[in-house]
Amino acid sequence: MRSVLLLEHTDANTNVDYLISQVREFLQEREWQKYHNPKDLAESICIEAAELLQLFQWMSREEVCAFKDVSSNVKRLKEELADVVIYCLSMANAMNIDLTSTVVHKLKRNRKKYPSKLYRGKAHL
Amino acid sequence: MRSVLLLEHTDANTNVDYLISQVREFLQEREWQKYHNPKDLAESICIEAAELLQLFQWMSREEVCAFKDVSSNVKRLKEELADVVIYCLSMANAMNIDLTSTVVHKLKRNRKKYPSKLYRGKAHL
Amino acid sequence: MRSVLLLEHTDANTNVDYLISQVREFLQEREWQKYHNPKDLAESICIEAAELLQLFQWMSREEVCAFKDVSSNVKRLKEELADVVIYCLSMANAMNIDLTSTVVHKLKRNRKKYPSKLYRGKAHL
Amino acid sequence: MRSVLLLEHTDANTNVDYLISQVREFLQEREWQKYHNPKDLAESICIEAAELLQLFQWMSREEVCAFKDVSSNVKRLKEELADVVIYCLSMANAMNIDLTSTVVHKLKRNRKKYPSKLYRGKAHL
Repeated sequence: MRSVLLLEHTDANTNVDYLISQVREFLQEREWQKYHNPKDLAESICIEAAELLQLFQWMSREEVCAFKDVSSNVKRLKEELADVVIYCLSMANAMNIDLTSTVVHKLKRNRKKYPSKLYRGKAHL
Repeated sequence: MRSVLLLEHTDANTNVDYLISQVREFLQEREWQKYHNPKDLAESICIEAAELLQLFQWMSREEVCAFKDVSSNVKRLKEELADVVIYCLSMANAMNIDLTSTVVHKLKRNRKKYPSKLYRGKAHL
Repeated sequence: MRSVLLLEHTDANTNVDYLISQVREFLQEREWQKYHNPKDLAESICIEAAELLQLFQWMSREEVCAFKDVSSNVKRLKEELADVVIYCLSMANAMNIDLTSTVVHKLKRNRKKYPSKLYRGKAHL
Repeated sequence: MRSVLLLEHTDANTNVDYLISQVREFLQEREWQKYHNPKDLAESICIEAAELLQLFQWMSREEVCAFKDVSSNVKRLKEELADVVIYCLSMANAMNIDLTSTVVHKLKRNRKKYPSKLYRGKAHL
């Protein structure tokens, strides 16, 4: 029992289902499922993605490199990234999508689309 | 051995670390880590989020409701959602962020920010 | 002379050159031209566009219809729309683009792409 | 008459009203005004802004500097910028906003918000 209380959820010990269930619980407590249609969710993903981008607005390459070394920067980035991810989990929840197999499948397609022989070291051909 | 070959990765049996490791492997095969600074990653999250939103451009409420019933729609949504999620995983990889604890922590903050007593059934006060 | 001072700039009496010159003057006063490369400007257009969208986050069709009737809403929309337009004018300035002929030319292409006979009353075929 | 036919619209000889009237005419020919509520227009501005940003995805500072010198790049940028501007004009049309006075007013506020004495040469304090 104590072990349950002390367990911290990390990427190493948590499956995606747990994260989606946490988002679902948060929604149910507030009766917010009714807002979660895929169009409004896609909007919210866009809005939060832009807030993430805003952290880097007008930053030079040098400033971007130094960004990571300031803990308050990393803290803000984590907050904004979490917002994007929470809405992605919400989309998976609303659409009844298995996110893991969706991601694995897309990576497989990307491997074919961008053969490493052709694209090694190059973003574009 | 056969069981390994047959195992399909799903949200129920896969932790976030596995997904990040898959993304990292994909990058390393192409030597693309050099592109993955947080500013360019935030841009790519924005770009993919907008492609997700584009699926619903000009759609009425009725069309959004019916969206889910057409399998080709769901297929396209999964592709675009995967693109957003893959770049979020890439950001976690590039910034050395534990995504699970970041999401769990943000949900805890959101619970305080939006007390269910006040916000039940309401997106805004 | 007094008439010059009293003249208010409106869509009916102002050409696009005047707006771009105002943006350029604002930049020069702050020596901000160095920040205005097209990539960072495109980012800023994205960020401001998302702030405009945020005004409508989670709004139902009925709330969107009623939006216009509240003067504080219109005021906020004008501020956010101005931010997007100012960065578009900045992009035209930075890239030495004539915005008017660019818009007129694109509308001409759109007329061909979406023949009114086919698209009358329909967003998609 | 011939002079009318030969007149090319440029930033120097065209007021904003003309551009809005061209957009309005385009919409009326297709009976598309019904789609132009402010929420869907804000979405479309976001979507087009992201397509503009996509032109610069993964580009280094050096590649951004060289972008301007390739005429096919400039052509694509003009197309994407036009799409954003056309939807901004559409928003002004749908909301009955005078874009010129809105922009002039916002620049006045920005002048106060960012005093040139404090911000000269600096994007942030």
